[in-house]
Amino acid sequence: MDLNKFLNTFEGDVEEMELNLSIDCVIFTIQENHLKVLVTNLFEGADWMLPGGFVLNSENTEHAATRILHQRTGVEHLYLEQFKIFSDPNRFSFKALFEEMDIKKIGTVDVNMLPMRVISIGYFALVDFKSLNLTGGEFDEDTAWADIKHLPKLKFDHAKIIGDAVEALRTELYLKPIAYNLLPEKFTMPELHKLYEIILDKPIERSSFQKKMLKWDIYERLKERREGVAHKRPFLYRFDSKKYNEALNQGIRFGI
Amino acid sequence: MDLNKFLNTFEGDVEEMELNLSIDCVIFTIQENHLKVLVTNLFEGADWMLPGGFVLNSENTEHAATRILHQRTGVEHLYLEQFKIFSDPNRFSFKALFEEMDIKKIGTVDVNMLPMRVISIGYFALVDFKSLNLTGGEFDEDTAWADIKHLPKLKFDHAKIIGDAVEALRTELYLKPIAYNLLPEKFTMPELHKLYEIILDKPIERSSFQKKMLKWDIYERLKERREGVAHKRPFLYRFDSKKYNEALNQGIRFGI
Repeated sequence: MDLNKFLNTFEGDVEEMELNLSIDCVIFTIQENHLKVLVTNLFEGADWMLPGGFVLNSENTEHAATRILHQRTGVEHLYLEQFKIFSDPNRFSFKALFEEMDIKKIGTVDVNMLPMRVISIGYFALVDFKSLNLTGGEFDEDTAWADIKHLPKLKFDHAKIIGDAVEALRTELYLKPIAYNLLPEKFTMPELHKLYEIILDKPIERSSFQKKMLKWDIYERLKERREGVAHKRPFLYRFDSKKYNEALNQGIRFGI
Repeated sequence: MDLNKFLNTFEGDVEEMELNLSIDCVIFTIQENHLKVLVTNLFEGADWMLPGGFVLNSENTEHAATRILHQRTGVEHLYLEQFKIFSDPNRFSFKALFEEMDIKKIGTVDVNMLPMRVISIGYFALVDFKSLNLTGGEFDEDTAWADIKHLPKLKFDHAKIIGDAVEALRTELYLKPIAYNLLPEKFTMPELHKLYEIILDKPIERSSFQKKMLKWDIYERLKERREGVAHKRPFLYRFDSKKYNEALNQGIRFGI
């Protein structure tokens, strides 16, 4: 990445930032039947990090999360959900971060004058990796999809943030059919079933799963079937967003 | 309340506080079949507020929430759950708050030197009001239980914070049997049913409710029945916390 450009931007904004308040984004996807998370690194050989940054004085935290994710990865128009705050007084240190990069000043500001502690707000999203335009953002950062079961070495408490985001994602899956974002327009029940098994990381009994899914009446069964699959030719389904929104308004929850 | 004592404490701590980061606590209870929320006011005639305060440099936000709730209301040992962040840049103003009290300086710090914006972290809890020891805290504040359907005039965005907390409480009720805190040791299914109806603010079909509750296998039916109730003598139940914890560990969710 372009570290100087990154530091220059940081310097320009330093007065306009809430420097004790950061955002970290946990972007999940499913790739080759594994649940993965988007990580970046500031320079070759550095520990990996979540895409993150600081809240500007003039913006709310949702705007900050969207802006930061775009700046760091190039990703736009993603609905991010706030899931937890990470506030251990010793979780992060500007001094440690900049020491590693051998930086003592950000413009005229001595690194020692930066806040002693930073509280971070965690946001997460579940996306189709093929739909993301990962350009590396403003600073040409390296990005990678890391398997949550085999995470690389991560900076600060970012491994814990990812762990807590996985929990939040699993809870959300019981409340809303968020896997919707990962499905093609037409999909089969075995495909939906596999997706739940990957995210929840456990086997789910197939016939009761299908029964529950269909009971919600938010999936429309099409006349077409999936061709070219071994043995059976399963029916294709489509998500009925109108029925789903009606169900949500009536206070129906989705749980398996 | 003792406003001078309040301001003196604030002055003493001002250097040790994250003054752009506050906590607001939404404490729910059920009183006379109404869902109510705990509010305080700083002085006679002032708008009501949620019990809140600032995060100290040395503490995490959970500690801050517990400490603040104790200082403002006298309540101890309450499990508070973080539910949302309120970060509109114009949601709060030190200047407006202190102008109203005709205060221009906090010790040697000019009110105009305080941060322009404060982000607040919302915490909520559902409690049995009879179990709370509301002393008014360190500053002898007035506290009151306000019906969420007839809230008094509230300062800043505190009415919105309460509204969002109600939503969080209702979602939580679908995930966990949190009403547990509000029940006596032995209770009847009609009593549990009434509690859900009050919190969710809608009629719930009684027999399917009871069926769902019992399917979870976390309530133990006792041999005793509730006496002195008109018509039927309903069975008493007891919460089986061992079975509940087992179920949670196995990933079972509670939803109606």
